[in-house]
Amino acid sequence: MSAVVTKVLKPGDTIGILGGGQLGRMLAMSAARLGLRCQVFSPDPDSPAFDVVQNATCAEYADVEALELFASDCDVITYEFENVPAATAMILDARRPVLPAQAILQTTQDRLAEKDFVTSLGIGTAGYAGVANAGELHAAVKKIGLPAVIKTRRFGYDGKGQAIIREGDDLDQVWKDLGTNSAILEAFVPFEREVSVIAARGADGHVECFEVTENEHRDHILKFSYAPAHISDALAAKAREIAEKIGTALGYVGVFAVELFVVPGPKDAIDGATLVVNEIAPRVHNSGHWTLDGASVSQFEQHIRAIAGWPLAKPVRHGQVTMINLIGDDILDYGKWLTVPGATVHLYGKGAPKPGRKMGHVVEVKPAT
Amino acid sequence: MSAVVTKVLKPGDTIGILGGGQLGRMLAMSAARLGLRCQVFSPDPDSPAFDVVQNATCAEYADVEALELFASDCDVITYEFENVPAATAMILDARRPVLPAQAILQTTQDRLAEKDFVTSLGIGTAGYAGVANAGELHAAVKKIGLPAVIKTRRFGYDGKGQAIIREGDDLDQVWKDLGTNSAILEAFVPFEREVSVIAARGADGHVECFEVTENEHRDHILKFSYAPAHISDALAAKAREIAEKIGTALGYVGVFAVELFVVPGPKDAIDGATLVVNEIAPRVHNSGHWTLDGASVSQFEQHIRAIAGWPLAKPVRHGQVTMINLIGDDILDYGKWLTVPGATVHLYGKGAPKPGRKMGHVVEVKPAT
Repeated sequence: MSAVVTKVLKPGDTIGILGGGQLGRMLAMSAARLGLRCQVFSPDPDSPAFDVVQNATCAEYADVEALELFASDCDVITYEFENVPAATAMILDARRPVLPAQAILQTTQDRLAEKDFVTSLGIGTAGYAGVANAGELHAAVKKIGLPAVIKTRRFGYDGKGQAIIREGDDLDQVWKDLGTNSAILEAFVPFEREVSVIAARGADGHVECFEVTENEHRDHILKFSYAPAHISDALAAKAREIAEKIGTALGYVGVFAVELFVVPGPKDAIDGATLVVNEIAPRVHNSGHWTLDGASVSQFEQHIRAIAGWPLAKPVRHGQVTMINLIGDDILDYGKWLTVPGATVHLYGKGAPKPGRKMGHVVEVKPAT
Repeated sequence: MSAVVTKVLKPGDTIGILGGGQLGRMLAMSAARLGLRCQVFSPDPDSPAFDVVQNATCAEYADVEALELFASDCDVITYEFENVPAATAMILDARRPVLPAQAILQTTQDRLAEKDFVTSLGIGTAGYAGVANAGELHAAVKKIGLPAVIKTRRFGYDGKGQAIIREGDDLDQVWKDLGTNSAILEAFVPFEREVSVIAARGADGHVECFEVTENEHRDHILKFSYAPAHISDALAAKAREIAEKIGTALGYVGVFAVELFVVPGPKDAIDGATLVVNEIAPRVHNSGHWTLDGASVSQFEQHIRAIAGWPLAKPVRHGQVTMINLIGDDILDYGKWLTVPGATVHLYGKGAPKPGRKMGHVVEVKPAT
């Protein structure tokens, strides 16, 4: 990829953040600690990130005038979510550096393009096939086998826009229910655990990975992260190597996450297991929230350092770290968490708890054993 | 003291902060992490704390209408500086709980009242005498001896409003130069080190002290803090006991700092040294900045917990901690500090560096030895 055009920020400069959720909020708070200002752009007037910045733009992502004004206030622009509309990114990119680069979104917004990209690097993924109609679904099932997962190619998250297909399912009905003309069928991966690597890549190409994190989901939503993951050192090194290879090939600047499945076998595998890339998230990631209190530098600060053109820090983990997501009514337990020794409570300033809504998280650090 | 009227906040509630400097900024950032909103009141349009909140009031402390509007937006009000004008505190106090309580300011704003209060608790201070005119200065010097320090009773900080009087000085001229009719003469204390205790007292009366910090000043401004202080465990326990006694006697809710001198002798002293209270600061304090990265909970979070009516956390120190203030042009070294392993950089978002201006600080944590 071509060299990334970057600008070295100085204290007092302004970072524009597209998206006003908890990730934008935590990015803005990390930037503030480094003396950088943030301006948040979000269509939602109740955006949690608005609370922690002086300057906010509440407008639609298609509002060209608002985007132009926003860009003119910023020195560099970043985003907290990968589904930034291409037109939005183009308008901003014409005015200010947008990091990570817009071209990367084109790869990571499309599950098929992402899988092709990962495969092209010689990195393993689940078996997959593009599916554009019911006929192709039949052919893909023949190729991939069942059970398998059908996903829309774009704009899916937290289990939305996907379905498991099992032996005997009516493929035509499945296709009709999915309601898309652009999908991907992925082989079901018999993984023993899910892990992720949170990596930062600086404008100079230097990569720093956090220690591999192990993740547990409930109802397709991350519930617990553990650092370090319960995998061998050699496998962890391999996971970080994969992340570095991906970041470098993308010409990435900022923090990204690589989600991986740990699959038992084959016999010649590293310590008896193989790593398969599930997904790349071109942004700070929920499975990196433990770094806020469990490491010497957080994923949020690393992202800010990277897009500011500042040197990355070398992350050092403090003890055994567990991250617990507070989802929906879990938030009602905040009073209990405030009394747990070694637990740090993060509440996102969202309004009413709704089922599946990420309301906050807790990081528990225990001395290394 | 009478029981403090408190209110238990819930996430989403708003804390009003009087004062928009770095202390207000760091308080607001800690509140945000706990899902609490802050509104900052400051007469300075360039207030660093404005950058990290959505709602700010830029008005004079004497602006009654602005104060009333501000109070109506807040659930509880606190301050980042001890010199809150009494009239301002009264206007706010009539509308919302103000913590720490306004009555406490009357003691700590007046060096003479503060010394009398500390003495009344049986806690040691430097010898002192109130001075209202040149004649009283002559009498006080006779009583206290020289060298001694003459200070205005009110509104002094960072060495401002004070002068050392040495043998042979012209007392009438010293008095004229000080330009006040309300001063205190304090005996010069031959201390071997300066330490401070940062303590939090909850609405329930529970006190949690951070470990005793050792402080080094340059030109009357704090330059370095070290945690723990280089004093014996018994002396450190005594220092924390003094802080607890002071907080309890004041009926304090929130974080406060007690600055102490460690003086060699007398023979029956704890481990050969005596503690003498220098000053009480009814607020978060520069010598507690190390807790941001060097402890399991920061002084800022403890203050927010206390005034929110939430339980205090039990602070656990991480390793050997050094805090370095970035004063004036020190800020120009921020790039160097970003590359120091184990150093966390805090920049306050202030404009141009001026001599003596606190621009940021660094916390270095080294594994305990």
